[in-house]
Amino acid sequence: MSSFYPVIPAGGSGKRLWPLSRAGYPKFLMPLGGEQVSLLGATVDRLRAVAPVENLFVVTGISHAAHVAREIPALREDNLVIEPMAMDSAPAISLAAAIIAHRDPDAIMGSFAADHVIRNVQAFAAAVDSAIAGAEEGYLMTIGIQPTRPDTGYGYVQCGDLLGVGPRRRVLRFKEKPDRDLAQEYVASGEYLWNASMFVWRAESYLAELHRRDAGMHDTLREIAAAWDTDAREQTLSRLWPALKKIAIEYLVMEPAAEEGLVATTPGTFDWSDVGDFNALGDTTPADRSGNVILTLDRDHSGPGTGTDKVVVHDSHDLVIVTKTDRAVTIVGADQLAIVDMPDVLLVCSRDRVQDVKSLVMQLEIDGLSALL
Amino acid sequence: MSSFYPVIPAGGSGKRLWPLSRAGYPKFLMPLGGEQVSLLGATVDRLRAVAPVENLFVVTGISHAAHVAREIPALREDNLVIEPMAMDSAPAISLAAAIIAHRDPDAIMGSFAADHVIRNVQAFAAAVDSAIAGAEEGYLMTIGIQPTRPDTGYGYVQCGDLLGVGPRRRVLRFKEKPDRDLAQEYVASGEYLWNASMFVWRAESYLAELHRRDAGMHDTLREIAAAWDTDAREQTLSRLWPALKKIAIEYLVMEPAAEEGLVATTPGTFDWSDVGDFNALGDTTPADRSGNVILTLDRDHSGPGTGTDKVVVHDSHDLVIVTKTDRAVTIVGADQLAIVDMPDVLLVCSRDRVQDVKSLVMQLEIDGLSALL
Repeated sequence: MSSFYPVIPAGGSGKRLWPLSRAGYPKFLMPLGGEQVSLLGATVDRLRAVAPVENLFVVTGISHAAHVAREIPALREDNLVIEPMAMDSAPAISLAAAIIAHRDPDAIMGSFAADHVIRNVQAFAAAVDSAIAGAEEGYLMTIGIQPTRPDTGYGYVQCGDLLGVGPRRRVLRFKEKPDRDLAQEYVASGEYLWNASMFVWRAESYLAELHRRDAGMHDTLREIAAAWDTDAREQTLSRLWPALKKIAIEYLVMEPAAEEGLVATTPGTFDWSDVGDFNALGDTTPADRSGNVILTLDRDHSGPGTGTDKVVVHDSHDLVIVTKTDRAVTIVGADQLAIVDMPDVLLVCSRDRVQDVKSLVMQLEIDGLSALL
Repeated sequence: MSSFYPVIPAGGSGKRLWPLSRAGYPKFLMPLGGEQVSLLGATVDRLRAVAPVENLFVVTGISHAAHVAREIPALREDNLVIEPMAMDSAPAISLAAAIIAHRDPDAIMGSFAADHVIRNVQAFAAAVDSAIAGAEEGYLMTIGIQPTRPDTGYGYVQCGDLLGVGPRRRVLRFKEKPDRDLAQEYVASGEYLWNASMFVWRAESYLAELHRRDAGMHDTLREIAAAWDTDAREQTLSRLWPALKKIAIEYLVMEPAAEEGLVATTPGTFDWSDVGDFNALGDTTPADRSGNVILTLDRDHSGPGTGTDKVVVHDSHDLVIVTKTDRAVTIVGADQLAIVDMPDVLLVCSRDRVQDVKSLVMQLEIDGLSALL
């Protein structure tokens, strides 16, 4: 049987969680899963159920490399892939694939987001096993999530026929975040799963597909991979990496491959959240009787606090309150809001508009307030 | 013609404006009228139109006496009445009446809140003149405000017949803050004016009424007044004041007097606001095209700031945003809220619930958070 190598691309600041998530303190470093450990740390812990930790890879940027190295002492030093500059998911995951394939041509690898919450590790491991079986049959596998509501914050995959007796199914296409009506259609049809950006495949199968879509990127990454475990790593990486194309792996490889029937999915039945916006963040923690979720985070990032004594909520409902200050937060007669109280910035956002925090962040950039980002 | 003496009771912290208004920094010291000057300072300026400043009295507590003394250099030292402890409006205004009557038995006095906003000084002075004419006829006069909406944050006076050719009318009774339905009835009837707590009367007429309602309080205050301009002032005040009853002047004197036909009102047609809650505060400043009012106050209390560059409002309407911090305040898709951003506390309150800030403050007291008040 082939060895399995989990890869964690740990980039992206989580713009829709601004001002909680910041360029300097991205979502994957935050303890948002209801425990003391960061989302990245929890992801690593979860992956111990599917592979030995010495097979683990993390791809991250220069700013957070030291933090990642210290937070995951078991991570092999030459499995920490530091991007000279951020290039989106296709170059990041493909470089890991190339390094893994160079070391072990028979390898099966999986890519798992650094900043998602998954509750049931056993069900997760079962889904990964099923995906590995699909990968051994030659498919580029995804683990899709059975939707529990018509969420407009997630992308979807449209499923086709069962492969054999299932549970794996062919993927017909990838779908962008839909509007409310379309999301309801998707869920009602029973044909769609949430795209959780979890991919499993034989590294060489994936690289062959990458070669068909972008031979230049493929060749470049093979060259870097060949130099990876030599003294030429740094020089090769810095020479070749900057010319790569910034592009998401879904666009470059997965969508075209799905159109040719090369992609399959296995449905994950575990609780999953990308904690991508303040509604999703609210769902990670039990609400009180009024539907209010109160997260008090320590200012020093050491984990969730316990004291909610300075948060006083008066006749208000369905709030998500996140506070990382020593200030009192008092609310009267207000419903359906996300309120994020940070030392340098306050956000008040209607819960039906949490997706738009991203456009606010873009506006702040335009307004020259990028020091806040 | 009798001399006119304006009295400004400057007490009360403005609980419904918490956390902007604080015990240590009450509403009357804040520059909320849209100018650099405090509400108290603006009140003093306005009263220069109706009496020489040497006739002015201010009644205040120990905490704010120094501030008042410095802010109003023209105030005579022995016209600054410092209450040893807060006793509500009846003792405060009645003591000023007794001191004034002791000095000038023929005096007419007026009591004017320290923390209201009035725009048209000429119309205000005309109303005071009309009230003085009524006082000379022996009435306890109020200046009522023609209601422009069925406000539930104000008390009302019910008017009876015109006195002579008007505009003065007899007051039938004083009414507490009504609910929405009752307020609509009041305004539709045309019989009601807002009670702005502006009173004008011959000091001796008022003291005679006080004597009928509470002879003990009357006698005590006459005794303090007799000692006021002597070396025994402090000793007499500290001996007698603590035994007085905490009671509002409306309850003790004005309501019973109205029932006997002794109270009259003259309608004020000037723009008036008690700036009593965040809706009223919002009305003091022009809103932008989305109906949002943004007040950025300097942290050092020196006046309203000009920079709104750190307030970013995205597709939100009818907000009142008050900020007294250096933090950025960002709002997405939220309507009809008062958002008050103070260094030590944040309040988010639905604009239809701004009256309930007072109960929040009471809850904070019960919860042992009175350091925030």
